Amino acid sequence: MRKSIATVSVSGTLAEKLTAISAAGFDGVEIFENDLLVSPLSPEEVRARARDLGLGIDLYQPFRDFEAVPGDVLAGNLRRAERKFEVMERLGATLLLVCSSVSPDAIDDDELAAEQLRLLAERAAGHGIRIAYEALAWGRHVNEYLHAWRIVRMADHPNLGTCLDSFHILSRGSDPIGIEAIPGEKVFFLQLADAPLLAMDVLQWSRHYRCFPGQGTFDLAGLVTHVLETGYTGPLSLEVFNDGFRQADAGRTSLDAMRSLIALEEAAARRRGTTPPIPPPVIPSGFAFAELSVPAADPTAELLAALGFVRTGTHTGKPVELWEQGQARILLNATGDEPALAALGLESPDPAGSVKRAESLLSPVLPRHRAPREARLDAIAAPDGTELFFCRTEHPDHSSWTDDFRPRPEGAPPAGGITHIDHVALTQPRHHFDEAALFYRGVLGLRPQESLEVPDPYGLLRSKAMSSEDGALRMVLNINQVGAQHIPWQHIALACDDIVTTARRLRAAHPGLLLPVPANYYDDLAARYDVPPELRELGLLYDRDEHGEFLHLYTITAGRVFFEIVQRAGGYQGYGAANAPVRLAAQHAWGAQRSSRMAVTPSA
Amino acid sequence: MRKSIATVSVSGTLAEKLTAISAAGFDGVEIFENDLLVSPLSPEEVRARARDLGLGIDLYQPFRDFEAVPGDVLAGNLRRAERKFEVMERLGATLLLVCSSVSPDAIDDDELAAEQLRLLAERAAGHGIRIAYEALAWGRHVNEYLHAWRIVRMADHPNLGTCLDSFHILSRGSDPIGIEAIPGEKVFFLQLADAPLLAMDVLQWSRHYRCFPGQGTFDLAGLVTHVLETGYTGPLSLEVFNDGFRQADAGRTSLDAMRSLIALEEAAARRRGTTPPIPPPVIPSGFAFAELSVPAADPTAELLAALGFVRTGTHTGKPVELWEQGQARILLNATGDEPALAALGLESPDPAGSVKRAESLLSPVLPRHRAPREARLDAIAAPDGTELFFCRTEHPDHSSWTDDFRPRPEGAPPAGGITHIDHVALTQPRHHFDEAALFYRGVLGLRPQESLEVPDPYGLLRSKAMSSEDGALRMVLNINQVGAQHIPWQHIALACDDIVTTARRLRAAHPGLLLPVPANYYDDLAARYDVPPELRELGLLYDRDEHGEFLHLYTITAGRVFFEIVQRAGGYQGYGAANAPVRLAAQHAWGAQRSSRMAVTPSA
Repeated sequence: MRKSIATVSVSGTLAEKLTAISAAGFDGVEIFENDLLVSPLSPEEVRARARDLGLGIDLYQPFRDFEAVPGDVLAGNLRRAERKFEVMERLGATLLLVCSSVSPDAIDDDELAAEQLRLLAERAAGHGIRIAYEALAWGRHVNEYLHAWRIVRMADHPNLGTCLDSFHILSRGSDPIGIEAIPGEKVFFLQLADAPLLAMDVLQWSRHYRCFPGQGTFDLAGLVTHVLETGYTGPLSLEVFNDGFRQADAGRTSLDAMRSLIALEEAAARRRGTTPPIPPPVIPSGFAFAELSVPAADPTAELLAALGFVRTGTHTGKPVELWEQGQARILLNATGDEPALAALGLESPDPAGSVKRAESLLSPVLPRHRAPREARLDAIAAPDGTELFFCRTEHPDHSSWTDDFRPRPEGAPPAGGITHIDHVALTQPRHHFDEAALFYRGVLGLRPQESLEVPDPYGLLRSKAMSSEDGALRMVLNINQVGAQHIPWQHIALACDDIVTTARRLRAAHPGLLLPVPANYYDDLAARYDVPPELRELGLLYDRDEHGEFLHLYTITAGRVFFEIVQRAGGYQGYGAANAPVRLAAQHAWGAQRSSRMAVTPSA
Repeated sequence: MRKSIATVSVSGTLAEKLTAISAAGFDGVEIFENDLLVSPLSPEEVRARARDLGLGIDLYQPFRDFEAVPGDVLAGNLRRAERKFEVMERLGATLLLVCSSVSPDAIDDDELAAEQLRLLAERAAGHGIRIAYEALAWGRHVNEYLHAWRIVRMADHPNLGTCLDSFHILSRGSDPIGIEAIPGEKVFFLQLADAPLLAMDVLQWSRHYRCFPGQGTFDLAGLVTHVLETGYTGPLSLEVFNDGFRQADAGRTSLDAMRSLIALEEAAARRRGTTPPIPPPVIPSGFAFAELSVPAADPTAELLAALGFVRTGTHTGKPVELWEQGQARILLNATGDEPALAALGLESPDPAGSVKRAESLLSPVLPRHRAPREARLDAIAAPDGTELFFCRTEHPDHSSWTDDFRPRPEGAPPAGGITHIDHVALTQPRHHFDEAALFYRGVLGLRPQESLEVPDPYGLLRSKAMSSEDGALRMVLNINQVGAQHIPWQHIALACDDIVTTARRLRAAHPGLLLPVPANYYDDLAARYDVPPELRELGLLYDRDEHGEFLHLYTITAGRVFFEIVQRAGGYQGYGAANAPVRLAAQHAWGAQRSSRMAVTPSA
């Protein structure tokens, strides 16, 4: 299907917007009037620029407060419209969006509205222009899409149709099934925006918090399915007002926008039983490994050893070591500056299929320079720059990344408390939280869970967990909701069968590796739950949900990275978010203490 | 009155919060439980720290979901309370806040609630603790303050009273006059927060958008007046959840908080006809001058000359020139790096009184190193660092700052189009918009107008005008609402009697000084209004409101500063905000063009 986007959805000057939108592969644009008004480009120049970039001008918008007014106001409104028709002719635009009036001049009279819209359509016809009438969710008298359609039908003019906008329909809780009552040829345009579920004034919600399909909570695939049922053949067009997108990189936002439309088209095709435009997601079945880039002489190896990991191999061609414990595998790649999570290996039933899926959703596929003996690794870049490798670890049907590692004499994977990687938490760049959520949902087929807010001593964080349906792959995305002074921490949570024993061993042998938990936390825990006193003694944190219980502990931080050890019991589904404020405060305290210690011993 | 603040209202660790709160002069704190839980300080250490800082611990909060539950839940809740009583004894806190329950366990039964709260108060009494029961605005069954009071009265225990919270009362639109039905000795605590008027879910509104009294739209002076009528003698205590304050400097936020309480105490005293704690505001009657710091060889003088200003004097002791036109006076102080607005002279009927007022509201008073012949200038620092001088220009009753300037031969103030400074616009630092609004309101007695949002090509700006009642002093405060990539522009708007003639003269003689306005703007203007074609020809912008009309133009920018020339007609009250997006886009375009021109002619 043809894909368009309103210029208001991305940042920059009109010229910058058009360039970014074209580069992302869109077919057309809606020219948002304010973007034209403030532009030094004439309408003719915009027309030429769009043509050169391969973009059609699919809509000019918005024209406000036109219909159902007293006769004297009507004359002025028609004169205003004539001026806009002239601009549209210069632009080469042939479709004008008219929003339902919010003016105190407007009269609650459908027949009058229809009569005046008919007059407008007749005038528009003289310029080869058509009118798409839309119900704003906060329109004064007309705010339901079926009401707008009733007026359009009453007006009965070939140059008058309706514009459907998912935000205006779904934000009011209207049932979109009524769309099927509208003949496809009278749906002149379809505008799409998603939004998070916010209980707020709909105008504020609309102007600041819209997002791309798949980033919010609306059922856009359902709405599009109804629209396609009418026989609509126009574009899927995004119109998103978002405070973050207004200042983010326009090229990146445009790609994110296009990704959202491709995924939406796929979802609608599945609903309708037609052939999806892209191959299906290949859902990973777990983590094959996590790769940390570390400096040459780094204590992370010591930390891993203390956690019970054993160095089981070294890469045949690179300064990379493999550390294992149970099914948990960590690679230490000694080419970094400070410890950071550089890559994740994901177990995929079909690595090539995983990459094809990612590519079809515009994710950058990473070139792999293979040494003759190295296993082929299919890899893509996640939105925060983390490399994702799709692996089949030691399956007979596929080469394994472990083939590149020479086993070391001490090599057998050890028995130990840790069984596998439970989840990985990544901090996303500012303004790209929604993009990341869409990426993990679309490319990896993960399911988003509720967004949470977590207070840090110096600001609020936002956190969203995403997991595969069976829970085998769990990711947590964090972002600094306010401020930018936080370290973009990343962490690897290691699952464990017996965290009490593991904690006891660690505390005895390496007490300095564990993040201290304040005693006040345990006083509060004892007030809330009947928990054994050994939690306090061992520095274990505790949470529960309706399914089960969760015990966890954190290590100190090395560079940007720390480890968590977790034990889930009885089907607990969360991530201990209730304890995150304790962890954040302890990390700040530990960092401050270390800085002051380093300040007094500058030789260290 | 005693002044307190909840630790959640400012940023940092608990230790950092206490230090900042004490430094701002507070008498006490509410310990917000989460701040204690995540702190490495034991309750005993917090108690000692607060004592050493001269802070009382006036409240421990919150205790949630206690009342009106089935018997088995009650037993657990009482055990939980006993644990909290122990913590409070270690802290030395004797008042516990209990919020009305939001739990699904809670039963809608006032008698049961009263009975269980009575039991809790009885247990608390054993520890020397009192209970303040508060209606949360989103409480499950109890969400009105008079409902909470009815339950407290029914329970009838000396250790049980109510806590009044301005946010919970006013956010629901409840009439606070009912407070006078409560005996003062049963009002155990008073929590204060203001908030902007937002149509959103009250829980979200409360958790993110509260602000200090005077920064929002609630009538807090009215509420406090009712509370004082009851005979209440406890503290005025701030409890503010604000995303910005969470990450702003704790010391600065604490001062802002204290300033808000002093101003609130004053306002309440005026309502009650008692003696206010601070001297009254001295409202400036206009601008005496604006002082720009400029580099030694700077084209700003040329720009002023082009605008019709004449250099009428030089400072006797500093590299400062005085430029005049009508009553508009600009000082160029050649000690800067790039042109920036460094100071404003405000005409005050009583300069010493102006400073006393500022000092009583905790504004920094600037030391003035006077040369023997220099006039005394009373000056303070505004929140963005701009220096504000209080002046009496050429009044017989006071020395005048102009005495320091030696008139130059060409010296008489010229006749010209410009009559005076209409307004000055300053860009405020991020997170300090509310602080600035409170400063201008409290210290200078200006009245805030509505906040506006202005789209810039690269983000949204927020803008609020403040003016004296007679409009003689007008300020505009701007802030980058999202992102931080904007230049912190400042501008001086010069009033003019005949802008058409002025514009014609400027365009003929100095066309390069005027910011270009896109032709598309005039196409739209012609569609909306019947305006003369000379506006387009002269590059004038146009706006109107219900009172009158506004014509204006902008110069190009020098450093951080640009000038606007404005003509108000028929009592227009605005600032041409509708045209600000055009101006912002033109400034970006002009800046980009100049950069590219400079890039191709590196010798320039």
